[in-house]
Amino acid sequence: MNYNISLIPGDGIGPEIVAEAKKVLDKVCEKYGHTFSYSEVLLGGASIDVHGVPLTDEAIATAKASDAVLMGSIGGDAKTSPWYKLEPSKRPEAGLLAIRKALNLFANLRPAYLYNELRAACPLRDEIIGDGFDMIIVRELTGGLYFGERKTVEENGVKKAIDTLSYNENEIRRIAIKAFDIAMKRRKKVTSVDKANVLDSSRLWRKVVEEVAKDYPEVTLEHMLVDNCAMQLVRDPKQFDVILTENMFGDILSDEASMVTGSIGMLSSASLNETRFGLYEPSHGSAPDIAGQNKANPIATILSAAMMLRFSLDLDEEANAVEAAVQKVLTAGYRTGDIMSEGCTLVGTKEMGDLIAKEI
Amino acid sequence: MNYNISLIPGDGIGPEIVAEAKKVLDKVCEKYGHTFSYSEVLLGGASIDVHGVPLTDEAIATAKASDAVLMGSIGGDAKTSPWYKLEPSKRPEAGLLAIRKALNLFANLRPAYLYNELRAACPLRDEIIGDGFDMIIVRELTGGLYFGERKTVEENGVKKAIDTLSYNENEIRRIAIKAFDIAMKRRKKVTSVDKANVLDSSRLWRKVVEEVAKDYPEVTLEHMLVDNCAMQLVRDPKQFDVILTENMFGDILSDEASMVTGSIGMLSSASLNETRFGLYEPSHGSAPDIAGQNKANPIATILSAAMMLRFSLDLDEEANAVEAAVQKVLTAGYRTGDIMSEGCTLVGTKEMGDLIAKEI
Ligand SMILES: CC(C)[C@H](C(=O)O)[C@@H](O)C(=O)O
Ligand SMILES: CC(C)[C@H](C(=O)O)[C@@H](O)C(=O)O
Repeated sequence: MNYNISLIPGDGIGPEIVAEAKKVLDKVCEKYGHTFSYSEVLLGGASIDVHGVPLTDEAIATAKASDAVLMGSIGGDAKTSPWYKLEPSKRPEAGLLAIRKALNLFANLRPAYLYNELRAACPLRDEIIGDGFDMIIVRELTGGLYFGERKTVEENGVKKAIDTLSYNENEIRRIAIKAFDIAMKRRKKVTSVDKANVLDSSRLWRKVVEEVAKDYPEVTLEHMLVDNCAMQLVRDPKQFDVILTENMFGDILSDEASMVTGSIGMLSSASLNETRFGLYEPSHGSAPDIAGQNKANPIATILSAAMMLRFSLDLDEEANAVEAAVQKVLTAGYRTGDIMSEGCTLVGTKEMGDLIAKEI
Repeated sequence: MNYNISLIPGDGIGPEIVAEAKKVLDKVCEKYGHTFSYSEVLLGGASIDVHGVPLTDEAIATAKASDAVLMGSIGGDAKTSPWYKLEPSKRPEAGLLAIRKALNLFANLRPAYLYNELRAACPLRDEIIGDGFDMIIVRELTGGLYFGERKTVEENGVKKAIDTLSYNENEIRRIAIKAFDIAMKRRKKVTSVDKANVLDSSRLWRKVVEEVAKDYPEVTLEHMLVDNCAMQLVRDPKQFDVILTENMFGDILSDEASMVTGSIGMLSSASLNETRFGLYEPSHGSAPDIAGQNKANPIATILSAAMMLRFSLDLDEEANAVEAAVQKVLTAGYRTGDIMSEGCTLVGTKEMGDLIAKEI
């Protein structure tokens, strides 16, 4: 089959890791007889350099016309990066929020699991790890504080800044349905996280989630307050299967969960709209400090490409093949620096990509 | 000297742990020649039972007239607790928010440190613990999403709920000053946590914190995004000295930090206004499941009483004596169930209170 894929290499290590994912996808095409046509889309620093803004209408149009978007990572840390040509409020984080909104990517799926081979990298004690953990955060991505009205005003010479958190029933329902659908294919447990003892938006969240739950009698639903969830992720992450939450809580908890696994260089993510279309990217950042040094771990991006094969292109067998290839290379003891441990073989970004492609 | 202290026993294990703190304070009075007069103040379930509401004006007046408030814990878990006589939006969490606002308790200090004796209870690996950690979260407590306007409206038959996050420069300045003052007595590092890549309120927060920092040239200030902070607390908590943040982020991060220490039954907290007045309470909840069983750990409440002696009553020597007594009892190997480990002696709530009082 023929597919059109938009590539957003992005900033920092982005271009290097996307190149390795493409290498693996090329091998998939060769083996399974597909053709992928790639269009490059500029976002973040790369777009600022060329167009002066983090995201253009053309970029959105190209992305929309494709079957899926595969992204590296965007973000600038050093004061020298192109991001800093822009006002703080116009920075490429804005590019990221704008593309999420423009493509209506309301469902952010972030698996957080522990590879058995990487137990030693997990910051938690062995007793807590137990048989390991495997959870997925389903984060609402186009509502809440991220997209509410905001303004800074002055009252009697004192500046005051206001952000707004709002959710309506439809926005809550569609993300809840995603979470329950996913739970049905997993261990059938949804933990919905909110702050219903304080926020009106959380009380509405809880009500709608309970309504949706009625259509999934096999799934166990529990509600958890966000502060408690932040504790439970450290105390006993094994308890979680699917965590369903709103945008800002999801931002915080998904990063905490990925660090709890100790393998953030391994974790993929998908941002989906109501069709099969989605944007796929590693959970980690752009790591400008190691950019261009062939040190970055490309596995999270390669696994994101696998998610793309599965969710947007409906190529389950191919997705499984990529995931199995990653597993084989890990079992064989190859590691990039971030996941290196005694007795393993240290390899660079390109070598890791080669090794995985070879296993397809 | 004579002092007036308001006691809020609260719900669940609250009355038991407050009784032990009072036992220790009685011993302090005896030894140092003070007189503490106590007035009981009803809040939460206890107030609902008597008055039908979680907080009355009389309770506020009594608290205000005293030198400090010592609280157990409020909150109901079981569907049977008096909390459930109220509408969700009128629940005693409302009582807690109302008393914070009425007493203008804008500065919530939550120390999170690891007792050397309790290393085994810490969920993190020994390599990460290293020499241990000792941080304090300074959380803004009377602003942000907790106290913004909120409403639920209906548009074309679809319900929509709205919460508002606002901060003005004065609110940010006073909490920042608290954090820097505290840092001056510690390791002189402030990590200010926000989401300045998205929120207007966070951008104002960052600006004001930077202004305040100019008055503290000896203190190192760093800014950290909230999602990154949630990761860093797991990856390397040793890096933190003082974490300064707004109300909701502080709620989440302080609970995460206390769980990271593994000793949540040991952690005290203080909520202060602009004078010496404050409300002191353990960081943990009301644990209704073990209420009335002489199982609860009273140490967090006893250490909260020590904070009260220091911050509100200016009794430094007495505060040190209480903290030293706790340390001695731990060193001697006495433990309540939550912190029990091999080779130690298991004791109940009352016995722990007796042991600590005896060491004063
Ligand atoms: C860069 C930032 C705006 C973004 C977010 O907060 O959503 C990032 O942290 C993420 O989680 O994708
Ligand atoms: C009970 C709740 C409203 C409260 C809060 O969120 O502030 C609690 O979690 C706390 O941290 O004291």
